[in-house]
Amino acid sequence: MDRHQTYAERSAKQTNAAAIQLLDTIDRKKTNLCVSVDVTNSKDFLAIIDAVGPYVCLVKTHVDILEDFNRTLVEHLVQLSEKHDFLIFEDRKFADIGNTVALQYFSGVHRIASWAHITNAHPVPGPSVVKGLASVGLPMKRGLLLLAEMSTEGALARGEYTDEAVRIARTHRDFVIGFIAQRRMEGVGLRPGETMHPTEDFLVLAPGVGLDVKGDGMGQQYRTPRQVVFESGCDVIIVGRGIYGKPEALDVQAVQAQAERYRKAGWDAYLERVKRE
Amino acid sequence: MDRHQTYAERSAKQTNAAAIQLLDTIDRKKTNLCVSVDVTNSKDFLAIIDAVGPYVCLVKTHVDILEDFNRTLVEHLVQLSEKHDFLIFEDRKFADIGNTVALQYFSGVHRIASWAHITNAHPVPGPSVVKGLASVGLPMKRGLLLLAEMSTEGALARGEYTDEAVRIARTHRDFVIGFIAQRRMEGVGLRPGETMHPTEDFLVLAPGVGLDVKGDGMGQQYRTPRQVVFESGCDVIIVGRGIYGKPEALDVQAVQAQAERYRKAGWDAYLERVKRE
Repeated sequence: MDRHQTYAERSAKQTNAAAIQLLDTIDRKKTNLCVSVDVTNSKDFLAIIDAVGPYVCLVKTHVDILEDFNRTLVEHLVQLSEKHDFLIFEDRKFADIGNTVALQYFSGVHRIASWAHITNAHPVPGPSVVKGLASVGLPMKRGLLLLAEMSTEGALARGEYTDEAVRIARTHRDFVIGFIAQRRMEGVGLRPGETMHPTEDFLVLAPGVGLDVKGDGMGQQYRTPRQVVFESGCDVIIVGRGIYGKPEALDVQAVQAQAERYRKAGWDAYLERVKRE
Repeated sequence: MDRHQTYAERSAKQTNAAAIQLLDTIDRKKTNLCVSVDVTNSKDFLAIIDAVGPYVCLVKTHVDILEDFNRTLVEHLVQLSEKHDFLIFEDRKFADIGNTVALQYFSGVHRIASWAHITNAHPVPGPSVVKGLASVGLPMKRGLLLLAEMSTEGALARGEYTDEAVRIARTHRDFVIGFIAQRRMEGVGLRPGETMHPTEDFLVLAPGVGLDVKGDGMGQQYRTPRQVVFESGCDVIIVGRGIYGKPEALDVQAVQAQAERYRKAGWDAYLERVKRE
């Protein structure tokens, strides 16, 4: 991908509905910020999302940590996504064989495919994980991100693993819209003599982004919005506690100020990247 | 591990409570069969488990595919595990950073740690996934299996990945009781000059076991109980549809006949392995 292309220019060349929706939302709201909401009760969950909604293109969820998850919560989440114009990304990290992930995606208490525009998967089971998820998600106009690498210490997603992840994505471009990663994947995994398909343009969503912290003591490592968007060419910054702090003492104005601070840092890094000299 | 050691002899040397419980159950019931119950409603789920209960040491669940999961279902599952004397293994395949997996294991609608004796994780995020799960599971006397390799076509869990998985397990032997794999891991991942700790004895649970089928068209490949237990030295055989067929037309007698057929095949393969000439 030409690093000077805008989100809008790239949207025009995408085929997956969720990828187009995400790029258009980023362009329309001028935000490449995704807030990761990792709390265990739905009151805090919805309050944080309602607070940060105006500043984000995407909300990342782990609904399997919510003690009081139910269908009403999903309805509220979907209402907030419409009210504030953002997409929903359930960070489920599917990692089983095709038949099982298809059931996990469609069925169960969570029924992820029914409300999450985007979800993700580890490529470790091989292509069957993508095929299983695509059998459910493609007819519902969903998109999938693959975890090509991870930002934790000692992660095994590196080297040949990352190469294979990108190859699996290339053979399923109708459904795989991009990666959870720290860098562009354009040249990665190409075998000698292979060249990139001219329409290939995977989105890269970067976790582990922080303006004030370096690590969490549990193996997570942090980089700044400018490092991931300008230097590494990533498309979306994912930020969690750095924005909403302690959910039990939610200060909406403080949360919104932090969200705006990250939104601006991410957007400025993007403008710096696409600027043509 | 000396392949002639019995389950009872190995139990005496284990330190993790779940590993001891599992080995003792296998020895007491003379079964190394684990039935994997992959259905989407609790009526079928409980009916299958009640039918196969007498023949198994372990029931493997994917509770996140159950449409009508609730606390009552968990109570019934735990009652069946006591009635029929088996352990419960939630095949969650945790694969996130430490903080997140700790919440996913303890919290949410499923509260897995409260009822599953054993769960599993992909080592792909690095050691933090084990540390996060251990912070919840060890005080509750639970055990963890790592996915050191996978039986699907094109799986990325191989080579250096498998080596690293085993190394992570070795540094967390209080909580990691073994592997989901197709073979013993004794020599795997040892660096030049390193030798195996004399008390190392990881359990190996083998999925993809079938007596009648070769593949499912979604990338799953099958081996016989004798191949995995006698030839490859695995400890537990995991069988799914091969035993219970179509859940909507459950024939309890037929299911029990199949369970007994697999139990006997797995146990005979074990007796053949431990026999001293």
